[in-house]
Amino acid sequence: MPGPDRALRAALDISRVLGDSRVITDPDQLERFGGDESEEPPRVPDAAILPRTASEAARCLSIASEHGVPVTPRAGGTGKTGGAVPVEGGLVLACEKMNRIKEIDAGDLVAVVEPGVILADLHCAVEDQGLFYPPDPASLDSCCLGGNVAENAGGPRAFKYGVTGHYVLRLDVALPSGAILRCGHRPVKGVAGYDLAGLFTGSEGTLGLFTEITLRLIPRPRQVSTVLALFPGLADAGRGIQAVLAAGLVPRVLEIMDRECVDTVRDGGVPLPPGIEALVLTELDGSEAAVAGDLERAGETLTRAGAQDVLVATGTVERDRLWRARRELSEALRSRKAHKISDDVAVPRSRLVAVLERIESIGLAHGLVSATYGHAGDGNLHVTFLWDDPGLEAGAAAAREEVMRLALEMDGTVSGEHGIGSVNRRYLEMELGREAMALTRGLKKLLDPASILNPGKIL
Amino acid sequence: MPGPDRALRAALDISRVLGDSRVITDPDQLERFGGDESEEPPRVPDAAILPRTASEAARCLSIASEHGVPVTPRAGGTGKTGGAVPVEGGLVLACEKMNRIKEIDAGDLVAVVEPGVILADLHCAVEDQGLFYPPDPASLDSCCLGGNVAENAGGPRAFKYGVTGHYVLRLDVALPSGAILRCGHRPVKGVAGYDLAGLFTGSEGTLGLFTEITLRLIPRPRQVSTVLALFPGLADAGRGIQAVLAAGLVPRVLEIMDRECVDTVRDGGVPLPPGIEALVLTELDGSEAAVAGDLERAGETLTRAGAQDVLVATGTVERDRLWRARRELSEALRSRKAHKISDDVAVPRSRLVAVLERIESIGLAHGLVSATYGHAGDGNLHVTFLWDDPGLEAGAAAAREEVMRLALEMDGTVSGEHGIGSVNRRYLEMELGREAMALTRGLKKLLDPASILNPGKIL
Repeated sequence: MPGPDRALRAALDISRVLGDSRVITDPDQLERFGGDESEEPPRVPDAAILPRTASEAARCLSIASEHGVPVTPRAGGTGKTGGAVPVEGGLVLACEKMNRIKEIDAGDLVAVVEPGVILADLHCAVEDQGLFYPPDPASLDSCCLGGNVAENAGGPRAFKYGVTGHYVLRLDVALPSGAILRCGHRPVKGVAGYDLAGLFTGSEGTLGLFTEITLRLIPRPRQVSTVLALFPGLADAGRGIQAVLAAGLVPRVLEIMDRECVDTVRDGGVPLPPGIEALVLTELDGSEAAVAGDLERAGETLTRAGAQDVLVATGTVERDRLWRARRELSEALRSRKAHKISDDVAVPRSRLVAVLERIESIGLAHGLVSATYGHAGDGNLHVTFLWDDPGLEAGAAAAREEVMRLALEMDGTVSGEHGIGSVNRRYLEMELGREAMALTRGLKKLLDPASILNPGKIL
Repeated sequence: MPGPDRALRAALDISRVLGDSRVITDPDQLERFGGDESEEPPRVPDAAILPRTASEAARCLSIASEHGVPVTPRAGGTGKTGGAVPVEGGLVLACEKMNRIKEIDAGDLVAVVEPGVILADLHCAVEDQGLFYPPDPASLDSCCLGGNVAENAGGPRAFKYGVTGHYVLRLDVALPSGAILRCGHRPVKGVAGYDLAGLFTGSEGTLGLFTEITLRLIPRPRQVSTVLALFPGLADAGRGIQAVLAAGLVPRVLEIMDRECVDTVRDGGVPLPPGIEALVLTELDGSEAAVAGDLERAGETLTRAGAQDVLVATGTVERDRLWRARRELSEALRSRKAHKISDDVAVPRSRLVAVLERIESIGLAHGLVSATYGHAGDGNLHVTFLWDDPGLEAGAAAAREEVMRLALEMDGTVSGEHGIGSVNRRYLEMELGREAMALTRGLKKLLDPASILNPGKIL
């Protein structure tokens, strides 16, 4: 691992290109570049670099390469698996000054953005034009498109609309060599050569640095309705989800929350009656006529599956409060106990009830409070364990490992949407096996032969 | 290029594993393994191999590698760019005996198939269970899933539902080493490591051979309506397409056909009034209520855009006749003149009218009949030039090159869904540029270092 001296020499060379004001080496100012929203302990980098343009970003990479200094790309810093933490020190290359929405083209149904654009800003900008960009990770008010593409971010609406990767049309990528590669295409279809844009999507900043992102848009659905179904038990709620799937409904959102989450949401100000052990939150969108019909079917289906009550959030205020509570759930859970760990396994949908029950008993066996919520329609669960007693830490780690093994045993994955980063590295080989690991290493070596890009992540 | 002797020695070794009956060396029997539906001249391979299982397929690859013999994977042989033509001889590895639908799981919304399953058979099997697999290339009655994944096949329904790659969850891939790599995931979401399944999808048999494919399914839409709008001119029809897009409608199909195609369809038995110069074919699906509402809006929108008449195909017979005519268009056009070349450029949707007009004048300038049809909602056009006089061949080649350049000039792509294969190789670098070409070569070398897999394709 190269020492800070080498990093500072690289930073000095970079300041000759960018000017001093965009090369940060003051330790106080550097602190905010050290962490993300994962359990990975923050590490303050040796310097942070703030390019404004693609060619500046590319030049920074080539200088870092010359010096053999690690570069950790940083977008919103809201990742859940350590992707933005410079675990080996060196430079953080932050895209906060590359934050322009360059183009929204309603005719082409395309948006072109720089990597530092905040997701919610893009949502607003396209929706103003009657357009829609579906991906909606919970951090949407602070996460950036560059990070979304790097992590192939999901979110509740992935159930109907798919994840970030389904919307990436074209990427400009700065490579460690300092070259800028353009891949993908502006038209919605294109099969000229290998899917290079797909290879970079979800590569967690380990293969290249995005400098421009072209995204597919769709027309904004004319109507949305939010439905909250209250269940007396978690397994009932799981069966409710499966009943909605079996009914052939395609809501845009199909979320579950267990008892601990229900209590947390209630404490956060959403009025919920007592005796509720699980919630199913669903959203239906489309034309007015389609939503009206689906709403009725969803209500009937959830009631038949055992929902105690099915509430329709009619007003925007009601809907916003519900969604704010859902989005803040991860942080709100953190404040309920001294310690928290979480992951986001995904399992085949038919295994949902079985997995939910197993997770509860894994938590119980280790004396932990478990709080599970997530995108149940996709089988993607955010499994959280909470505890106060420091003596339970080893048990929590064991519980987490059991959840990961459970997911794989159920033919699932260790990460539905948060990625591997540094936090989940030990589980990657368990999932991929030898051949896929070898190919993963080969790809990293092909694109980043000196391993300067986000070292310590994925591999 | 290794000679037939070496290929025959490899075939002999393979026959020791598979038995003689599944290693074909008789020239008469070999003929059907030599061509596809492109302009690439067929070439009869030295031998054809018919494995039944993944491990047999992998073993065949490793034997071919030992002998340094080219292997051209073959699924339905319906490709449009020479992907299945063994241009360097050697072995054809056909998957016709790997044709089992292994699983359709309505709970998980997943199908698991072998590469030799015919697409229409999968459509029937999943639709029988109330499920839906959207991709629908015109060759659906004879193309196979292995080829669909290799080419990342599209089809009319891609407008709403996306292309094959949007449905590939997991792939088992036999590598030249003889190893079998499993990549992707059964749950609908998964971000553990790089998107390896995405890398193989659309790689045209140049990186590995699929032995098992896990596909995402969705609920079958409850209602479908087909609408045919008749236009007096091509530009009007193009504006009709744009009006539908601008109205925020998301039909599952939004196709265009120009005058020559109209005549061909009419000659094929679809009754169309005179004076029609272009058709827009659209399909709306969803719940009964949604389709009824959208149908009305689509009709109004197309009429306002200048459609002379808007017909709704109400019965199945009417719908099937219309679609059969559309699917047979490529072949029907071939019989109208002695010679035909076609490609499938895609352009940003807003450029549609401009591109349609330019294509017509390019054809005229070279004395060719032009026939353009395709997935206009996606900007993906099948541009066809027809001629009788052999002296026009050079002009046709020039016209084609002009169309390719036009697509790139419009920020489009040289192939929306047919791929590069051998036929479009010369246009790939024009589109990708130096960096993306270098990465493409690097990926090929990483996965197929001896270049035995489908040589002469893409690169």
